Amino acid sequence: MPKPILLITTDVVDKRSVQTLSKYARVFSSADLDEASLIQLFPSIDILLVFFWPSFLISENLSRMSKLRVIQSILAGVNHIPFAQLNKNVIVCSNAGAYSNEVAEYAWALLLSAAKRIVDFHNAVKTEQSTLRRTLGGKEVTILEERTLGILGYGGIGSAGAQIGKGFGMKSYAFSRELVREKGVRSFQGDKGLLTVLAESDAVIVALPLTALTNKIIGSEKLATMKRDAILVNIARGELVDETALYEHLKANPDFRYATDVWWYREGKESLKTAHPFFELPNFIGTPHVSGPSGLATGKPVKFAVENVMRFLRGLKPKNIVNPAEYLVTDRQEY
Amino acid sequence: MPKPILLITTDVVDKRSVQTLSKYARVFSSADLDEASLIQLFPSIDILLVFFWPSFLISENLSRMSKLRVIQSILAGVNHIPFAQLNKNVIVCSNAGAYSNEVAEYAWALLLSAAKRIVDFHNAVKTEQSTLRRTLGGKEVTILEERTLGILGYGGIGSAGAQIGKGFGMKSYAFSRELVREKGVRSFQGDKGLLTVLAESDAVIVALPLTALTNKIIGSEKLATMKRDAILVNIARGELVDETALYEHLKANPDFRYATDVWWYREGKESLKTAHPFFELPNFIGTPHVSGPSGLATGKPVKFAVENVMRFLRGLKPKNIVNPAEYLVTDRQEY
Repeated sequence: MPKPILLITTDVVDKRSVQTLSKYARVFSSADLDEASLIQLFPSIDILLVFFWPSFLISENLSRMSKLRVIQSILAGVNHIPFAQLNKNVIVCSNAGAYSNEVAEYAWALLLSAAKRIVDFHNAVKTEQSTLRRTLGGKEVTILEERTLGILGYGGIGSAGAQIGKGFGMKSYAFSRELVREKGVRSFQGDKGLLTVLAESDAVIVALPLTALTNKIIGSEKLATMKRDAILVNIARGELVDETALYEHLKANPDFRYATDVWWYREGKESLKTAHPFFELPNFIGTPHVSGPSGLATGKPVKFAVENVMRFLRGLKPKNIVNPAEYLVTDRQEY
Repeated sequence: MPKPILLITTDVVDKRSVQTLSKYARVFSSADLDEASLIQLFPSIDILLVFFWPSFLISENLSRMSKLRVIQSILAGVNHIPFAQLNKNVIVCSNAGAYSNEVAEYAWALLLSAAKRIVDFHNAVKTEQSTLRRTLGGKEVTILEERTLGILGYGGIGSAGAQIGKGFGMKSYAFSRELVREKGVRSFQGDKGLLTVLAESDAVIVALPLTALTNKIIGSEKLATMKRDAILVNIARGELVDETALYEHLKANPDFRYATDVWWYREGKESLKTAHPFFELPNFIGTPHVSGPSGLATGKPVKFAVENVMRFLRGLKPKNIVNPAEYLVTDRQEY
C-alpha cells in the first residue's frame, strides 16, 4: 500500500520532524512546489499540516482534495480553518495544550501588570507625573492572596494558570464543559455556572476556544455581573469579548481592568485597529499577540502537532479532534 | 509603677490599636501636641512608634530622650533611623515580615512584566510601532518554567517569592546569612555563594535590607557574573545596586532587564531623579515605590508593629531587633 501524502504549508516545521513524518508518509512542502505542481498534487493529499491558513487553499482548491482526511493545526486554535468548505469526513485537530504553560505564564504577566498597575506606574514615572511612595487607597493595587481566580475554559492553559494561582495563595473557580476534579479548584458548568464564576472572581483569565458558542460570550450583561474592581485577562481570542460593551464598561468603571494579548477581527482578520480608543484608558493593557509566538520558540507546538499526525499515520485516533458544528460560523475569522 | 510613655509620630495607626496600646502605656500622638508640649514630653518617652522618620526628631531632641528604650518602625526597613544619634541601650525593631506577601506579589509583577516585556509591548502597540503576532527570536520573551529563580535575602519576602516561583515550576536559589532548610530551595552563603546564585539564575529578586554590609552590593563585577539575558528585580532599596554600573550594564546588554520599585538616594533621600536616563532604555521598568503602600492598605504593617510594641510592654523580648552596628553609616539615608 502506498504511503499517505502529507502537505506541510508552513516553514515552522523543522527538518528532523519532516524526516520522522517521512517514515510513514510522502511529505511535500508547499514552499517547494510551483502552482501547477500544487494543483496536480491536491487530489492525492491525505493530510494537511498547517500553521496560519495558507492563501492558496481557497474553496476551489479545497474541493479538489477528494482524498483529504485530516487537517492538523500548529496554532492552538482552529477558528482559522474554513469548516464550511470541508467535506464532512475530514477530521480537524487543534493543537490545544501545545502552548499551555507559556501562554499561562503570559496570562499571569498580564494579570499581575494589571493588578499592580505596572504599565501605568512606569509611564507615570517616565513622564514625571508620579511622586514617590504615594499613599494608595487600597484600590489601585490589588492584593491577590486569598482572593478568587476565575478561569474560563479549563484546558491546558486554564489548568496551568490555576497551578500558578496556587503559588499566590488564590483559590480557583473553573468554568468548563466537563467537570474539573482537581484539588483547590471549584468546578462550574452552564450559563449559571459562568455567572457565578464571573460574579465571585477577583481576577478572570479567559482561555476558551472561539466557536459559535463562545463568540462574544463576555458582553455587557456578563461584565455587569463582575466585581467593579475585577481584572479580566484575555489570552485566547479577542472576539470572545464584545468590543463596545468592554469599552463602555472600562470607561464607567475605572477600577475594573482589562489586559489582553488578543484582538478583535476586522474583515475576518485579527487587527490592532480598534473601534474605540482603548489606549487612552489607564485601565487597559494590550500586547500584540505574542504569547503564542513565545511558546513556538520552545519547539513544543511543532513537536505536539507532528506527534499527533504520527498517531494518525500509525492508525491510532488523533487527539484534539474538534467538533466542526461549533466552528460553522457564517463570518469566518482568519485566526 | 506608672505606665510607660509611648509617642506615635504617624497618623497611620488606627484608633483601635491606640486603645490596645493604652492598656499598657500612656499613649501620645505627636499630631496632637504643640512644639512646647512635645519638648516637655521628650525626657519621659520610653517608646517611639514611627513610620517615616519625623522631621522634629533632630539630634538635639533625641538627646533629650534619656528614658528612650525602644523604637518600633512601621516601615519594613530601618535604614531611615539615625542610629548614630541614639543611646547604645535603645533597641530598634524593624517591621520585617509585615509587608512580605504583598511585596513578594509586587516583585513578581515586576519580574513577569520584564520577562514578558509587557510595558514595552503595550507602549509599542499604543504608539502603533508594533505588528501583530511578531515572530519572536526566543530572547524577547523569557519562559520561566524549569528555570532558576535567585533570591537575595531570604526573609519573609524572599520566602513568599520562592513559594510563588514554585507555581511557575521554577527552582529557587536563596542567598542569605543563615542556612535555608526549605523544600525546593538551595541555600547559599557568603561572597562565593552570592556569585553562584547570580551566575546561575535566570531571574533574581533583591530582598536584602540596606545596611553598611549590603550598600551597593550589586556592582559591575556582580552584574558581569549574571546571565546576559537575566532579569534583576529590586523591591528592597535602590542603593543595593550601583546606579552607574547598572546603567552601563543595561546599555551594553539589551537582553538583560532591570525592574525596580525602589530608587537611589539624592542628598540622603530616595528620589525619582536618576543620574542616568534609565527610562530611555527598553530593558528598564520603574515604578514609584508603591509595593509597601499596597501592603499598608492590608492593615498588617500597623498590626504587626503594634503587636511587637505590646510584646515589649508585656515584658517579652520584642521581635525583629536589628544590629545597630550594621546601620552606622556615615551618609545616613532617610528611608
